[in-house]
Amino acid sequence: MFHYCLTVSYVGTRYLGWQIQPESYGKTIQGEINLALQKISKSTNIKTLGSGRTDTGVHAMGQVVKATIPLEINPRNLLKAMNSHLPEDIRVLEASLSSDEFIPTVHAKSKEYHYRFSTNEIHPPFAEHLITHYPYDIDLEAMKAACQIFIGEHDFTNFFVEGTPVSSFVREIFECEIIEVPANELFPSYYVFRVVGSGFLKQMVRLMVGAIWRVGRGRVTLEELQNSLSPMKQEKLGAVAPGHGLYLMRVNY
Amino acid sequence: MFHYCLTVSYVGTRYLGWQIQPESYGKTIQGEINLALQKISKSTNIKTLGSGRTDTGVHAMGQVVKATIPLEINPRNLLKAMNSHLPEDIRVLEASLSSDEFIPTVHAKSKEYHYRFSTNEIHPPFAEHLITHYPYDIDLEAMKAACQIFIGEHDFTNFFVEGTPVSSFVREIFECEIIEVPANELFPSYYVFRVVGSGFLKQMVRLMVGAIWRVGRGRVTLEELQNSLSPMKQEKLGAVAPGHGLYLMRVNY
Repeated sequence: MFHYCLTVSYVGTRYLGWQIQPESYGKTIQGEINLALQKISKSTNIKTLGSGRTDTGVHAMGQVVKATIPLEINPRNLLKAMNSHLPEDIRVLEASLSSDEFIPTVHAKSKEYHYRFSTNEIHPPFAEHLITHYPYDIDLEAMKAACQIFIGEHDFTNFFVEGTPVSSFVREIFECEIIEVPANELFPSYYVFRVVGSGFLKQMVRLMVGAIWRVGRGRVTLEELQNSLSPMKQEKLGAVAPGHGLYLMRVNY
Repeated sequence: MFHYCLTVSYVGTRYLGWQIQPESYGKTIQGEINLALQKISKSTNIKTLGSGRTDTGVHAMGQVVKATIPLEINPRNLLKAMNSHLPEDIRVLEASLSSDEFIPTVHAKSKEYHYRFSTNEIHPPFAEHLITHYPYDIDLEAMKAACQIFIGEHDFTNFFVEGTPVSSFVREIFECEIIEVPANELFPSYYVFRVVGSGFLKQMVRLMVGAIWRVGRGRVTLEELQNSLSPMKQEKLGAVAPGHGLYLMRVNY
């Protein structure tokens, strides 16, 4: 068997997320990638492993995927073949040889996520599936201060939605900020909540955004946010922000 | 009856274009707008007139629509009501009172169209329906020179696809250029073919782009382009560029 490392970008809108599901449930990113690999290698004996799951509607700029197939092929040609078989909303951006030992989940040193949202009164049609509409007056300075509180090692029990059991709720956040993106050719101005961390629990980023939004509207204080990162009390500070604003940007190894 | 002027933006991807069609053909922008107006005015006695048709898959940032309905309503409230009834890929950006005499087609002094295309080898998934993929080496300077040739009053017989009969093929182009848009948060770098003219024939902009592309690839000379704008010879210089790269940006009155 031969191992390849792929950097994959996708628009999550049409998919049930990364993880392959029974066909009757609907399409997934992994399902589409597996299908392309099966066609290219003319074999069903293929295996893919992503750096992590992305949920329904969530996008990726740089998902990292290890593909194991019974075909020796120049990575450059694998990339071209995959992009000719994959639907246009999934693209392989880079391909290289991978070692047998590489495990995209375990070996990731950090991941970067962006969450895009706009507070403009009218949400432009082009932003429908790409930027979340949050048409409220927000206190940007309070939200920026909230980002600072997330930085460091914390217990994220309150930023986790039940799913696959995990051994620890402690994660380290290396960078966390809000970037103001000016209007461009296609979109009016919007905000990016940018976070880099050692790893993320299920729906953790979207719960962080939900909490930050409530801080921005004066419904949650910075002190309450601080307290929610201690394991003393179990309480979600806000809703899970919608999936379509979230982007897995990069996985660092 | 009461008259309103609406500025409408839409993603053309899901629609058969502006012009209403028999329901069995599929959805149209005008059809959706009429439906919203019928709900708001609680009447089927409504009428809409756009500044011009846009084809299947073509987008608009600023289509101008005159709506005539049997309801007196504050334009601000009409805007809000429409955006709550319309699908999210169609948005009313502005609304004002209109005179009975205003005819959006006839009274337009000029229109601005943009055509977005990218020559990058890999077309990012987010650009799928918004930017046309044209992955070829192009001579940008030749294309810029070609834009200059379009400026002025010309006979556009060779930039017209059979359709509604027209009385004249002469149109005046006021501005024509290619803009290089640098990479941003969501898209890598791409090009905008920007054209402002007195009016446009059916598929005229897309045929201009088709010709410009062939100039960029050295298949058509600037002299041939110049000659095609004289009525001596009937010959298309290139294909009709795909609809999904085209945007009606603005209509000037």
